Amino acid sequence: MRAALYQGPGTPGDVSANVAAIAAAAARAAAAGADILITPEMSATGYNIGELSAQRAEPAHGALFDAVARIAVSHGIAVVYGYPEAVAAGNYNTVQVVGPRGEDLGSHRKTHLYGDLDRGLFIEGHTLVSQFELCGLTVGLAICYDIEFPEVARAHALAGTDVLLVPTGLMAPFEVVSKILVPARAYENQLYVAYVNRCDVEAELQYCGLTCAISPDGADVARAGGAEELLVVDFDPAALATGRAINTHLPDRRNDLYSTVSQENSRSSR
Amino acid sequence: MRAALYQGPGTPGDVSANVAAIAAAAARAAAAGADILITPEMSATGYNIGELSAQRAEPAHGALFDAVARIAVSHGIAVVYGYPEAVAAGNYNTVQVVGPRGEDLGSHRKTHLYGDLDRGLFIEGHTLVSQFELCGLTVGLAICYDIEFPEVARAHALAGTDVLLVPTGLMAPFEVVSKILVPARAYENQLYVAYVNRCDVEAELQYCGLTCAISPDGADVARAGGAEELLVVDFDPAALATGRAINTHLPDRRNDLYSTVSQENSRSSR
Repeated sequence: MRAALYQGPGTPGDVSANVAAIAAAAARAAAAGADILITPEMSATGYNIGELSAQRAEPAHGALFDAVARIAVSHGIAVVYGYPEAVAAGNYNTVQVVGPRGEDLGSHRKTHLYGDLDRGLFIEGHTLVSQFELCGLTVGLAICYDIEFPEVARAHALAGTDVLLVPTGLMAPFEVVSKILVPARAYENQLYVAYVNRCDVEAELQYCGLTCAISPDGADVARAGGAEELLVVDFDPAALATGRAINTHLPDRRNDLYSTVSQENSRSSR
Repeated sequence: MRAALYQGPGTPGDVSANVAAIAAAAARAAAAGADILITPEMSATGYNIGELSAQRAEPAHGALFDAVARIAVSHGIAVVYGYPEAVAAGNYNTVQVVGPRGEDLGSHRKTHLYGDLDRGLFIEGHTLVSQFELCGLTVGLAICYDIEFPEVARAHALAGTDVLLVPTGLMAPFEVVSKILVPARAYENQLYVAYVNRCDVEAELQYCGLTCAISPDGADVARAGGAEELLVVDFDPAALATGRAINTHLPDRRNDLYSTVSQENSRSSR
């Protein structure tokens, strides 16, 4: 599977401009032979845009889905984008995957909301693991803060995820997440991770870029700096098999001892 | 709490020489004002020593404990050491903590055995979280491969561990564990980690050093190279409080979604 990771600035609140940016990235990705384009959290609308977020919210198969589907079909490439998904109860922080024939391949609603920003705009998702199949690999979805919780990538690994796609909106000074936590998730779970961040500023937030693709040995396949960039990487089933033969963390788990891991935190409660 | 992390080569199978090295490190640690000295996995006996391991095995309060207790009392410092602990069913890969008055402060039996080396010599421990109190902090114990499993440090965090001590015997080419996984454990769980490795060779193994102390923000407090070294670091309760106020991963856990994390691996079974 060849993937293109688009680290872009986005235009806050301007869906037409953002869809045009996604279309331009899809054209470049397809020209590079990519099977899938991954764009950041809230790539279609902007993220830290206050009340504009609710105004840009759409149902799962609205006009935005149709617009991105036309891009996907036009270039014969799967496209992953983020947007506020409107339901009766409120709006989810959602990532949607459109297949190369314009079909709905899968989606994920952010389960771990981050601080006042997320909690002020979104309701929390209820499904930890969202997956789809592409190019013979099982692909999983997580969004931003989700990946900082080891439980999320572990649940994906136990459910068979080979490649975990993580659209994100990571801001300074939390570079440690891209540099340390994301590589740890790949190694400890023996899967690929594609962590695709925004760049530039959005209101008071300075996004830190550092989009990266990490192999199952914890090493960078590719890593962006702080500016707009398109990374093109290959996810190799043979490398997954080799890594899993060397690093046997999954079969070596002591599942008989882990009951406390799904218990309540002793320091605080939700 | 001030801690001294002793990265040493050890003398394979020679308990007297290893106890002398622990005594020398304890003297230096105490002179630096340390409250506790941490030495590597199997620091008292050697680790990759084949059948000598079983010959050096002792019950929990045997002659070795008494010898280390004399060191601890002599220098007024707690001492953490590793040895094969003999019980009726076999030998555990154990870490023992002796307090500054020669008392048994706590111990841990390795729960995640690593490959043929561990499985050929040891039986697996049955307690995931071992803790003791020192200098007003809750100190936890894990051994080597244990820390590579996110479930272990998470269980410690949920049980209130502030400082996680990890005697280890990490060999090349697995430097990623010290550089990526150990810092991730500190950050994602908001605790200090002291990862104390062997150095030099032991039979066919080349230990890679890289002993480190990591703060709750995922940064190195101190880090050794590949040779013998004594790191002296302070674990600061105020830094723990500050980190936990900024990084709210523990209260932000979605415990309602984590039931799969303690389920069996779908790829393989133990």
